[in-house]
Amino acid sequence: MSTADESTSPATADAGRTVRPQAGASPVDGEEEGPETGRDAIIRAARRAFTLKPYAEVTMRGIAAAAGVSPSLIVKRFGTKEALFNTVVDFRPAATELFTAPLPDLGRHLVLTMIDLRDRLHGDPLLRVVFSLGIEDERTLLRARFREQVTDRLAGLLTGPDARLRAELVAGQLLGLGATLSLHRPDGATAQTRAERLADLYAPGIQHLVDGG
Amino acid sequence: MSTADESTSPATADAGRTVRPQAGASPVDGEEEGPETGRDAIIRAARRAFTLKPYAEVTMRGIAAAAGVSPSLIVKRFGTKEALFNTVVDFRPAATELFTAPLPDLGRHLVLTMIDLRDRLHGDPLLRVVFSLGIEDERTLLRARFREQVTDRLAGLLTGPDARLRAELVAGQLLGLGATLSLHRPDGATAQTRAERLADLYAPGIQHLVDGG
Repeated sequence: MSTADESTSPATADAGRTVRPQAGASPVDGEEEGPETGRDAIIRAARRAFTLKPYAEVTMRGIAAAAGVSPSLIVKRFGTKEALFNTVVDFRPAATELFTAPLPDLGRHLVLTMIDLRDRLHGDPLLRVVFSLGIEDERTLLRARFREQVTDRLAGLLTGPDARLRAELVAGQLLGLGATLSLHRPDGATAQTRAERLADLYAPGIQHLVDGG
Repeated sequence: MSTADESTSPATADAGRTVRPQAGASPVDGEEEGPETGRDAIIRAARRAFTLKPYAEVTMRGIAAAAGVSPSLIVKRFGTKEALFNTVVDFRPAATELFTAPLPDLGRHLVLTMIDLRDRLHGDPLLRVVFSLGIEDERTLLRARFREQVTDRLAGLLTGPDARLRAELVAGQLLGLGATLSLHRPDGATAQTRAERLADLYAPGIQHLVDGG
């Protein structure tokens, strides 16, 4: 399977898109489209900044410049930097969709929901937390948020021994699914396979962990 | 499980270390430590640059500045920018260790080898390819390299239908394992669990894909 043509393929845009519309953006939390010009640009710029820079280095001024708006507009709409972080880095809407299924069906539900969320969001709802590991600085807030909103929440749903351990491994499988779908687009086998078939293959390993390992 | 103390914990250093010593560095390819002062610094700086910037934006001058050496020293030791890229972004040593096992044992071997490689390298041998998805630019060379050296190679080893599809999903599980181990360090359950137990839990899902799904 050739990858030589990737530089001119939609894969480039896909890699970018995974940073833009994410859980917490319109399709997930019901945020309305409309007259709030600049709001989406602010959210995108803020999400990108909080993913790729240490929290302490993120400035409202920098986000404003990237979004093409004034810093005062951001403060007016979102409040403090902390409030803005809490708005744009929020895994809870995705976690709610992912984890709402009976435990005996959860493996398959997770795979199908992850693929559906990625389609709707034009990006991965969780993968940004892995991007945040790639730079030599602390990204502690982003990681702590993931642990609280994804791993801890899943651990609380699982029954049986080692629930926390199994939740961490399930979180890994979800991150890995998103990673491989993004890496192998657009001409990869996963990108060209129906969601139901991907679930047939990938869900049993997740369900094994959900059931108790 | 508290994450509040993470900013002063080794997790911070871990997030950084995942970018530094990697497959292709000393512990894997037999590169010798010794009188070549600056060589490791150049490799680290180059690996970081090629992971976090588009290939076209990486300059020998920038790598030299980050490594604290002269650009001419890099050219003397590594040759052209392309040659340097080929030296520092090389998943083959890790892939060789990961994929050298009989197929019926491959799932468990992959988990144990991944954990062992991460320990020896003080970082993950594959995860950088996911970091490369996090920035809005093409990272086509890095991704193409991963697909050739990891996914294609594994696909060639698997037997049965949909080998390429299953290889992509196994690659995802490996990336997910590394991601969750890094994200949940140092106080996470995975970080505090023996490798054999992690293999008991995580390997069956991989082996399911190796066996044919």
